[in-house]
Order: sequence, then C-alpha cells, then structure tokens
Amino acid sequence: MDYMKLSAYVDSRKREYLDELSGIIRIESVSADPLKKKEMVRCAEAISGLMREAGIENVELFETQGNPLVYGEYVHADDNPTVLVYGHYDVQPVDPLSEWETPPFEAAVRGDDLYARGSSDDKGQLFMHLKAFEALRKLNENMPVNLKYIFEGEEEIGSIHLEPFIRSHKDLLKADAVVISDTAMYGRDIPTICYGLRGMAYLELSVSNSAIDLHSGSFGGAIENPVHVLADIVSRLHDKYGRVTVPHFYDDVVDVPNEEREEIARLPYTDAEFLRQSGAVAVYGEYGFTTNERLWIRPTLDVNGIYGGFTGEGAKTIIPSKATAKVSMRLVPDQKSEKILELFESFIDQIAPPTVKVTVRKMHSGEPALTPIDHPAVKAASEALEQVFGKKPYFIREGGSIPEVLTFQEALGTPVVLLGFGLPDEKSHAPNEHLYLRHFYDGIKTIAILFEKLSSRGFAPGI
Amino acid sequence: MDYMKLSAYVDSRKREYLDELSGIIRIESVSADPLKKKEMVRCAEAISGLMREAGIENVELFETQGNPLVYGEYVHADDNPTVLVYGHYDVQPVDPLSEWETPPFEAAVRGDDLYARGSSDDKGQLFMHLKAFEALRKLNENMPVNLKYIFEGEEEIGSIHLEPFIRSHKDLLKADAVVISDTAMYGRDIPTICYGLRGMAYLELSVSNSAIDLHSGSFGGAIENPVHVLADIVSRLHDKYGRVTVPHFYDDVVDVPNEEREEIARLPYTDAEFLRQSGAVAVYGEYGFTTNERLWIRPTLDVNGIYGGFTGEGAKTIIPSKATAKVSMRLVPDQKSEKILELFESFIDQIAPPTVKVTVRKMHSGEPALTPIDHPAVKAASEALEQVFGKKPYFIREGGSIPEVLTFQEALGTPVVLLGFGLPDEKSHAPNEHLYLRHFYDGIKTIAILFEKLSSRGFAPGI
Repeated sequence: MDYMKLSAYVDSRKREYLDELSGIIRIESVSADPLKKKEMVRCAEAISGLMREAGIENVELFETQGNPLVYGEYVHADDNPTVLVYGHYDVQPVDPLSEWETPPFEAAVRGDDLYARGSSDDKGQLFMHLKAFEALRKLNENMPVNLKYIFEGEEEIGSIHLEPFIRSHKDLLKADAVVISDTAMYGRDIPTICYGLRGMAYLELSVSNSAIDLHSGSFGGAIENPVHVLADIVSRLHDKYGRVTVPHFYDDVVDVPNEEREEIARLPYTDAEFLRQSGAVAVYGEYGFTTNERLWIRPTLDVNGIYGGFTGEGAKTIIPSKATAKVSMRLVPDQKSEKILELFESFIDQIAPPTVKVTVRKMHSGEPALTPIDHPAVKAASEALEQVFGKKPYFIREGGSIPEVLTFQEALGTPVVLLGFGLPDEKSHAPNEHLYLRHFYDGIKTIAILFEKLSSRGFAPGI
Repeated sequence: MDYMKLSAYVDSRKREYLDELSGIIRIESVSADPLKKKEMVRCAEAISGLMREAGIENVELFETQGNPLVYGEYVHADDNPTVLVYGHYDVQPVDPLSEWETPPFEAAVRGDDLYARGSSDDKGQLFMHLKAFEALRKLNENMPVNLKYIFEGEEEIGSIHLEPFIRSHKDLLKADAVVISDTAMYGRDIPTICYGLRGMAYLELSVSNSAIDLHSGSFGGAIENPVHVLADIVSRLHDKYGRVTVPHFYDDVVDVPNEEREEIARLPYTDAEFLRQSGAVAVYGEYGFTTNERLWIRPTLDVNGIYGGFTGEGAKTIIPSKATAKVSMRLVPDQKSEKILELFESFIDQIAPPTVKVTVRKMHSGEPALTPIDHPAVKAASEALEQVFGKKPYFIREGGSIPEVLTFQEALGTPVVLLGFGLPDEKSHAPNEHLYLRHFYDGIKTIAILFEKLSSRGFAPGI
C-alpha cells in the first residue's frame, strides 16, 4: 500500500470525520444512568450505520440483559490472519456539568483538541477503526486481513454482559489477535504500545445508624455518628507508608523484575510534568516506588466518592442516618478481584464497631492483564506506529482497567494488542474530556498500516 | 380568669387553629435556601396578618440585610410586667424529600400528630403564642401583662441579623422576662421547663487537590486522595473515649455540681426508650457520662454532612478533586464559640498534610445559655404548666442551641424562660417533622395562664 496515498486520503477527510464523530458523541450514551436506556440503543444503531457505510458486512445488534452489543465482519482474505477489534460506545457520567466549558455532548474543537464526553474514551477511538477500514476500502485496497468488530455499551459499568457473550460466541469471535484502542499514549506524539493493565474491584461501603437524620442538638454526642465511623474505616484502609492495610491484600502481587523497573525508569518522566497533567499539589503514594511504578505495577485503593447527611448550601445540624463511600481497588498480576473483594469484606467485618450497621455491596470487577511483548501482532503494531509517527514506540503499562482484555485472552486464547491513541491528561472520566486531533488522524493511518503489517509479516492464521 | 372557660374556648377552635397554621406552613420559608427569599418575606407578612387579626398592635416588619424581623406589641397594663415573646418563622431544609410520607409543606393530621416542616420547629409554637393572646382578647379578659413580640426568619441559619437588632433596639424590646417556645418537653404529657441550652460553632472543612476529578486508573496511587485525607482528619477529631481531641477544647467547660447530675439521673430515662426515639443501633458517647449528661452538660463535635467525588448511582472511577465535611460543635458553659472555632482551625493547621490543600470556613455560631431556675418568671411558668397538665413540671436542659437566648440575657438584662411544647422525637430537623396535637392545644392554654400568673404573683416591672 502506498502510505502517502493513504495519508493524503485521511487528511482530506478531516472535516467529514469530525462531523460524523460529532453525531455519535451527541447521543448521550451514559451507561451508569438508568434513564439513558434509549440512548444506549440509539448509539448502538448509529454505530451499526457507520459500520455499514464503511463497508463492514453482516452488521448485527446482539441484545443482552443490558445494552446491545454491535458485531460486524469482513472476512475475505482466506490465507491471512483474522483481527478482532474491540471498542465501547458507552461513556462516563458527565457530572459536575457546571465544570464543562462547552456542553459535554456537543463536540467542540479548541486548539489542537476535540472536546466532548467520549471524544477520547472511547467513541473517538472506536470511530478511528471504522475510518481506517473505510479508507482501505475507498482506496480500493484489497483488505490485507480478515476483520471482526465487537463493540459494547457497558464498559464503564463493568462489561457485565460482554464476558458471557464472548464465552458463548467463541466461533463467531475467533481471531488471531485482538486489537483494542482504549488506552493512552505516554505523551503527545510519543507512539506507545501498552502491554499491561490493572484490574479492578469496586464496591460500596455504607455505615448507617438511625433510620432518619436526627437533630444534632437532641441526639448529638449520645449516639454514634455514621460519618465518623465511615471516616474511621476509610482512615484505617492505608498505613503511613501509603500501603493498603487489608490483610493479605499484597499476597498475590507478582514481583516485577528489576529489568522491567529499569525500563520504566528510562521513560521520560518529571514530577513537574506529572503535576501539570494531574493538577495535583504533590506527588504522593506507596513508599519505595516511583510514580509510574505506583500507577502500573502496584495495586491501590481509592475512595471515588463519599456522601452522607446534609450536603447542600448553608448549614443543617443533623446526625446523618447513613454515610456511603464508593471504593475501588486497582489490581495487578496475580491478584484476583473476587478474592480481593472477599478480603476487603472480611477486614470490614473485623473492624466494624457494634454501634452502627456496616455493609459492603460488591459492584463490578475485572482482572489485571499482561500481553507478551514479543508476539508478532505486537511487533506489527510497533512497526505501524514507527511508520506513521516517525519514531520507535515506547512500551508501557497503564494504571487503568479494561477487564475484557483478560476475557479475550482466556476465552479466545488470543493475545490482545493495546494500541491506544488517547493521552493521560485528556480527562477521560472528568469534565472537559478531549482528544488530541493529531493522534485522531494519525491513529486512523496507523490502524490501516497495522493491517498491512500483520498480513505482510506472514502472521499465519492460528498462530 | 376562669380556666374552664379558657379551656373550652381553645378546644372549640381546634379546626380553625389547624387551618390557619396550615396556611403558614404552606409558605416554604427555608432560610438555608437562597432561592426562597420571596417565601421568607411572604411568611413574615402572613405572620404579621395573624398578629393583627389577634389584636396585637403596632405590627411592623423590620428589614435586615437578610430576612425581615416581625415586631408587634400590646402595652396597656401600666403597673404590670412586660413579657417579650420570641419565635422564628424560618424552617430547616426538607431534603431528602423522598422520605416524607406527606408533602412537607402541606400540614397533615395523622393519629395524634400534625405532620409538616415547621409544625414543631417553630411555626407551630410561634402560632400558639398568637392564639393564646387572641383567646384572652376574645374572652374579653383584661390583658394581665404587657406583651411584645419579636419573630425572626434566620434562626436555622444562625440568627445573624437578630443580635445587632436586639442591641440597637433595647428600648423597643425592653421587658421583664423573655418567653421562648422553641424547645421540647421531656416526653408526651410531661410538662417541662428548660433551663439550659448548648451553644454551637459551625464550620466547613474542605480538602482539595487537583482542580478536576481525575481518572483513578491514570492517577490513583500516585497522588493524595482528598477523601482519604478528610477521613483521616475526621477520624482524628475524637479519641477512643469519645472525647473531642481538639487541644484545649474542654478548658472552659464548667464542672456541673453533683447535685445537678443527681437531678438529671432522677429523670425518667431508659436506653430502650432513647433508642426507640432515636432509632439508633446503640447508645454511644463520651466515656463516663450518661445519655442525658452527654446531651446537656457535655460539649460534642459532629459531622453533619460529608461529600466529595462521585455520589450518583453506579460506579465512577475517579480521584475526587475535593471533599468537604460540615462540622458542628455543641458547646456548654463557659465555652465561647469564637475561641472554639479558633482552636479547631489551629488543630487543622497543625495536622493538615502537605500533599493537599485544607481549608476551614467558619459559618455561624452561638453561645450556650443557662436561666436561673429560681426566677419569678420561671416559677410562674411552672405554675401555669402544673395547672394545665395537672402535674409539676420537670426542669431539664436541652442539647440544642438557641443562640439568641444569650443575646436577650446579655443585651436586655432579662432572663429567658424556655417554655417549649415540642417533643424529642418530633424529627424537627428531619423528614416527617410533626407536632403532638395535645401539646399544641394545651400549650395555647398554658401560655395564656402564664400571663395571668406573671401578673398575679406581683412580678413587678423592672425586677
């Protein structure tokens, strides 16, 4: 394939790409919001439409108990490998809405970036795959690989219906490699392949006492305050070295070899840049590890939200009836989310005082994952990145979670290539999420080139 | 005065009283809500109307920087004492709205009680004073005392404009005794006079880090989580004996004499009844004190609300940018709210970690107060209660705060009689607030009788 021709074609379509992506972004597919059920279906249908227009065949919506899965394929390269592309069309909630500079569901270009919920995570990246396919078709290229696409609408709420679908549709999804574009590059114009993801265990921890809020004058000081107990418990979840105190939490954590830690240390990193990206006051974390190690190779525990009692303007003098914390733990190999949730629950049982009711509600979870970096599909992705970005890619891990990566690996026996085009500071779960437009266009090119590299290196089916 | 005639008159007006009170309750005078400014004025005007109808003279609205004060008087008993009646027409917020069995601003009788926001605290009790006056007038009784009325609309947000008004209108408000009906009786049909109130110091404690919520996968474990720090701080505010750890917090607490603690111990009390009233799991508080002592003679610290990060349905994986706790401290003689707020602030300065920003925002405050129980006005109230309820009243303290009590005492040199007709389990700051109707009607009678007792015991002006 003529790279110059591909590149010119993609560059000539920029306006059209932005318009089409804006249409997808406009659909408020917030999977965590039970009131958005219709938007989820509308979004799945819109994605199906784009797939058909691009030339993808046998496009089909698979109903689930939750949001529909979208499947499509193009299988005509008999002797060449088959690639399964995964993405998700659901997005994170948008609150606090007031902090968005432009409305979250109206895509807006400012500077070098496209601002909108889902621009980076993951509508924008899903869209790049459709446009890479379309570009090859429009340029009358023979498709160098067989392609299958599976897009879900529940990634942000734990992919609960994807796993059973994968396990019950192994033939349909059978492939030689899975490609996922849902991670971040290490920095702007720094091509990156991600080979490791943390897993996750998410739960709600609640402390309750009276059935209703009580007047703090009439009852304050004579009954236990649920907020105080919740604060005590949260306070006891870390020690002074930043380590999680849940007993046996670290038992299954695999020691990372010194060579890998040295590799991580060689990556461009400064506290100043990290603080600029995060907007945080200081670097802080588990004693004895660097920032990238804390993010990639160490498990963590964070309260993602806390609430109880009066949270409005002004003052209200009550003993709250209940207080709740949303807690997530990021896991690394070989921690298992189910075991970790049980360890957490046991610890809470052990430390919960008798003066209140303390409950743990397990929510979703996913396992950590690693991809062998010497796999031919990873090498092909590396070459594709080098061709488009003009330099060799870095190999990194990521602190986030894509639970389905492990499911694909386990259920299909297929390695997963994490070829993400986001950026760490693109606020993918916060107001003003955005996507760096150069990565958007170069990503489309990279994906198209990847298919050629996969084919031309004789990456035989079944390997 | 013929008590039977008074009693029969009040009993014949029950339907009318409920209808008129419902009209006042319907006005959503939530002082903590900046959007209810118009309702505050409407409520002040409605109260003024009721006063005029009752026969109270020179009714006037005094504008303040906040909500208007309502004044009225009836000064015709030249040789008899003057009583200043205080009440408030503002109410607490109603959230969580979903927990109300009937709409908070539509008064509803169920069983022996009237349900509505403000039914007990304090619209219902303010209304009883107007109807006691009206009853005496309608029965063609000579008013046995001179009366002055001052009603405010900012009690639930700290009475910020009342204190300067009292200080600058000492002549207008000059009286021999102040009567306030804004406290609770010890139990149903147990006549009670309250002689002590706790003070209050209210503040907001915030911990912030990044300017925006961050993806917990990309940043979790490498920066400080504001919720963790807030939990640490809240957790450090009490020791294992339930004592507040703020240094010097107890320095000014006056030891209560053993005789008074013995009196408190003689009051009817069981843990079972206290737990029924509170709905709490267990009795808990400062080591070495009984429940009533913890509520009345010991200072306390409570978090009234906490919030930060994602608080919606489902799961969101973020490091919250900020977390906030609303904190109130209930004070006893001779603690001073200003000093306590400074001690709190110093303690936070001392323990705040360098990895985040920690701020304390002082909100409202009020001082604790005691009334001498041998004052003639207290004796008159005691006799009035005995006549209407048929038994001698208990003398109790209350755990709540009415900051203006001390202002009246200090600015006017006048003792304050706390003649409340609420009940401890009437949920005055919670959903389903209600007022026991027998106390409502008997309260009207008691107030009318009180005026006669004040006059007939030769309680001379200026005493």
